[in-house]
Amino acid sequence: MELGMIGLGRMGANMAERLRRGGHRIVGFDPKANEYQQANAKGVELAQSIAELVGHLPPPRAVWLMVPAGDAVDQTIATLLPLLAPGDVIIDGGNSNYRDSQRRALALADSRIDYVDCGTSGGVWGLQEGYSLMIGGGEAVIERLRPLFATLAPAPDRGWGRVGPSGAGHFTKMIHNGIEYGLMQAYAEGFSLLQHKSEFTLDLHQVADIWRHGSVVRSRLLDLTADALGENPALDGIAPCVADSGEGRWTVLEALELGVAAPVITLAMLARLRSRDPSSFSDKLLAALRQQFGGHAVLKEQTKD
Amino acid sequence: MELGMIGLGRMGANMAERLRRGGHRIVGFDPKANEYQQANAKGVELAQSIAELVGHLPPPRAVWLMVPAGDAVDQTIATLLPLLAPGDVIIDGGNSNYRDSQRRALALADSRIDYVDCGTSGGVWGLQEGYSLMIGGGEAVIERLRPLFATLAPAPDRGWGRVGPSGAGHFTKMIHNGIEYGLMQAYAEGFSLLQHKSEFTLDLHQVADIWRHGSVVRSRLLDLTADALGENPALDGIAPCVADSGEGRWTVLEALELGVAAPVITLAMLARLRSRDPSSFSDKLLAALRQQFGGHAVLKEQTKD
Repeated sequence: MELGMIGLGRMGANMAERLRRGGHRIVGFDPKANEYQQANAKGVELAQSIAELVGHLPPPRAVWLMVPAGDAVDQTIATLLPLLAPGDVIIDGGNSNYRDSQRRALALADSRIDYVDCGTSGGVWGLQEGYSLMIGGGEAVIERLRPLFATLAPAPDRGWGRVGPSGAGHFTKMIHNGIEYGLMQAYAEGFSLLQHKSEFTLDLHQVADIWRHGSVVRSRLLDLTADALGENPALDGIAPCVADSGEGRWTVLEALELGVAAPVITLAMLARLRSRDPSSFSDKLLAALRQQFGGHAVLKEQTKD
Repeated sequence: MELGMIGLGRMGANMAERLRRGGHRIVGFDPKANEYQQANAKGVELAQSIAELVGHLPPPRAVWLMVPAGDAVDQTIATLLPLLAPGDVIIDGGNSNYRDSQRRALALADSRIDYVDCGTSGGVWGLQEGYSLMIGGGEAVIERLRPLFATLAPAPDRGWGRVGPSGAGHFTKMIHNGIEYGLMQAYAEGFSLLQHKSEFTLDLHQVADIWRHGSVVRSRLLDLTADALGENPALDGIAPCVADSGEGRWTVLEALELGVAAPVITLAMLARLRSRDPSSFSDKLLAALRQQFGGHAVLKEQTKD
């Protein structure tokens, strides 16, 4: 097939490359110069603008967005809209909020442009191993795009599928990431316990590597844990601050809206917030209260030089 | 090598069989008739008693225990002790508390009998795929037993290792199981959210199967989740009561003793306790309090016929 790929960052460039290797013609565009250069080196056909990208594609066109969730998606769609024609399709492969995807699909339907939301998992190794794709949208348009999904996935018949109507793809990806938060926190706590058991001076990399083969806790995330501990067993130089990029929070909000208890996913999300708050007001207050009622000493906060 | 295997339940019989296929001579014993029969069918050489088992092994003997953690291990050791000679070794492959393993190793050292604690993961598929083995004890005796571990593991050089002195093997397995509790709870919550999102009528088995290929959340536990949802998509007939078998609780206790925060593992453990308490007194009290201060209605408890 022929496809326009807007956004050639870490994910977009690798996906374009996998599609190209699979025999598809890919026209790429990225406004950032260095990502443009990297994509160029990978042999992706490059356009200087979104208009040029659209001009290089024969109708009915397919344009894949790999841009940051939020405004960037709306802006890109606004730029694309006057350039596209009825029967064209936009695929959002990023981590958009599923409600945004529902809204965008509805708005584009007025112009008879199809909109497909595709949750994409696979990280930096997706280029070699393929991506897991959770797809929402109309059955006919997703069927038309089958050659793309079949190439991006680990195998033509595995690791991808239409999971439901518009929004269902990004909803499924959101829950996927919520689960990921919980899984990561469980591993992190377990390895922390192993690390603190000084009596055994365990080799954490060795333990992770043993578990990778035959155990019930083996997983892709354990493979990555083993890699990280192999490179840097004491995790020297890594600040204990964990970012989050939206989908964990959305999962917690969704749990509250649905009235479904998701305590571990929620707690994993909250643990990340706490990790980024070194001057925790709540912990200061707890220390102050212990001093009030029990005369327990408080530690002096270290002042910055 | 030649090995005595005491305990031929689900795990023990499969391990004996894998060892036998690997060219080792295995003498088995199990006091339960039906497990004895199953093991017999698998071609394991069977003894009628522990004394007979010991009599069939040439010194220095190796005897592997696959019996339930706790008293059964102490009783089996007490039966074995007068039958064994200095230089023999007992391997405990079950889920014993690591402090018990430390105590037993110390006690047996007085009789110059080696004691090896071997945390074993692999479930019912271990027979085919091999087991993950976390081993504690002396370096020399573990080296002597290398042929057994190399056969039980997924490959001779993978999935097993001496992780430290006596107790370290079972400690590592305990943390392994604690992590497993957290991982399972994260998946369970995520699939519950997918199931409750009625607007998308998601096919949970399809979603699990998509994630199995290429995604960051792929894992052995996800494979098992996909199997369970494939067999019974609505989980009909399965009561929402989750048992626990010790190691999750011990992990939480260890976290408290070490003073290490393990909130997600702890909460996953507590969620299992709540699942088994359909007449939760705390939830009754919360409902009663809401009625007290706000006049909120309480639901009448359903009485059993």
